[in-house]
Amino acid sequence: MKILVIGAAGMVGQKLIQALSRDDELVLHDVVPFTSKNKTVISDLSTPGEAEKLMREKPDLIFHLAAIVSGEAEADFDKGYRINLDGTRLLFEAIRKSGTRPRVVFTSSIAVFGAPFPEAIGDEFLNAPLTSYGTQKAISELLLSDYSRRGFFDGIGIRLPTVCVRPGKPNKAASGFFSNIMREPLAGQEAILPVEESVRHWHASPRAAVGFLLHAAKIKADQLGTRRNLSMPGVSVTVGEQIAALRKVAGERVAKLIRRQPDEAIMRMVAGWPRNFDTRRARELGFKADASFEEIIRIHIEDELGGRV
Amino acid sequence: MKILVIGAAGMVGQKLIQALSRDDELVLHDVVPFTSKNKTVISDLSTPGEAEKLMREKPDLIFHLAAIVSGEAEADFDKGYRINLDGTRLLFEAIRKSGTRPRVVFTSSIAVFGAPFPEAIGDEFLNAPLTSYGTQKAISELLLSDYSRRGFFDGIGIRLPTVCVRPGKPNKAASGFFSNIMREPLAGQEAILPVEESVRHWHASPRAAVGFLLHAAKIKADQLGTRRNLSMPGVSVTVGEQIAALRKVAGERVAKLIRRQPDEAIMRMVAGWPRNFDTRRARELGFKADASFEEIIRIHIEDELGGRV
Repeated sequence: MKILVIGAAGMVGQKLIQALSRDDELVLHDVVPFTSKNKTVISDLSTPGEAEKLMREKPDLIFHLAAIVSGEAEADFDKGYRINLDGTRLLFEAIRKSGTRPRVVFTSSIAVFGAPFPEAIGDEFLNAPLTSYGTQKAISELLLSDYSRRGFFDGIGIRLPTVCVRPGKPNKAASGFFSNIMREPLAGQEAILPVEESVRHWHASPRAAVGFLLHAAKIKADQLGTRRNLSMPGVSVTVGEQIAALRKVAGERVAKLIRRQPDEAIMRMVAGWPRNFDTRRARELGFKADASFEEIIRIHIEDELGGRV
Repeated sequence: MKILVIGAAGMVGQKLIQALSRDDELVLHDVVPFTSKNKTVISDLSTPGEAEKLMREKPDLIFHLAAIVSGEAEADFDKGYRINLDGTRLLFEAIRKSGTRPRVVFTSSIAVFGAPFPEAIGDEFLNAPLTSYGTQKAISELLLSDYSRRGFFDGIGIRLPTVCVRPGKPNKAASGFFSNIMREPLAGQEAILPVEESVRHWHASPRAAVGFLLHAAKIKADQLGTRRNLSMPGVSVTVGEQIAALRKVAGERVAKLIRRQPDEAIMRMVAGWPRNFDTRRARELGFKADASFEEIIRIHIEDELGGRV
């Protein structure tokens, strides 16, 4: 099978590529230059014509992971819409015009939801995003559904929980601190917590996120029906519970490296974010969450720190 | 106050203009040439640069009513997206770049919803449209919310029920038959009913629709909060109940002019359309529906037929 990964240089993209079968032919795309033993294409998909060039590869399966993250899309209105909306729409148009009908797995986000929320967000709750990033993802979901309904491709949108513990350097996502307060202390570094410990949020490990992508690629279209965008299962914990899990797994000395420094701007943004979900459809379709936040921390230690703190 | 009406040549546009105060200064826009004693601008808003020209008028209030209707947007994919999505986005961008912050009243549609539905669609039910038209309206709603949240304008989207009895010639809306089976018999003409009498749908008279627009123009932004798109109140009736109301108001001789001729394509489309709503937010904000389907027929007779059948 020929697989195109868009946003291949990103953290989730890199882990996905590791997990894909050696028997598949991979074409890897990003706007950021990167090296790989697979075929790579570097271009800006928001430039008209670039997506058409990419579609000449005629992939059977496309993972579309590329996006400007939430913090940056909020700071730069034009760039967010250009990459997250126009880039996605140009890709979908190029697929349509290619006449091929690949499976398209699109990474959406729980940022498509905005407060006020019910106790747990169900599969029929409205998309009322409170960020430009969430708006761009919600619009992309609608396009994906319509293009699939019209038969231009066979799409599935998966709303990833916040991916935690995110390895590597902090990125510009406003949700970055959920990972920073785990990753940095585990590496012996201080980390800043900009919100109250009572803040509850919805998490999945990078390993679970890659599992969602691989599973989404295999689901039959007739199981999906017309509603092709799904909230993924996750772990709902407060920041306080995150810290307690860190203490349990890595000890008090590590947990003590978290420094409280409230940031009003981040607190305001986080107040509009989802806290908990009832992801019945996704669970029935076989998507699997991490067992607990402790497991999420252990996965980080295994996959990123060679099993040792 | 300076008021810009986009889609002014349409049926709802013309009735709105009649209802607006004589003290206001009107600028009327459409892509279709039409005559008026007010200032008119004829252009295609989906052509880059045209919306900017229009914004040089610096309106305080904009009614955006222009759209390719559902049947045509389904038949011509490119045209639907160009007018209903790109046209709206170019308008919103031009408003943003003008630096003015007008109230924008956008006519959305109940087509943003798709089956399966609950008994009555509430204010927190998901937008899962089953037509390209509904998709384009749902995307426009998301843009309106985000542009309002960012402070580029002060928007409100109102999801009109199917406007019935629609006067004049049948248009390309797939929902046209709901009006045709009332209007044509009342004018002594035969009309074709392409669906079963058990089909239930959500209606508002042209008079009620204009009332929604005028009311939407006046609602304070702080009453709206962040959720700026509202399902409008309406009358939920089956086609059978429509016909019974017609019989009651205009007699058996008129009702007999309806000819049953099932159309599989229309029946499939209609099966995915909303049937009933719980429009609590809109009612609390003071939007008012017609009292009954009989009243809807009487309004047509009063406003279009000089009070006589």
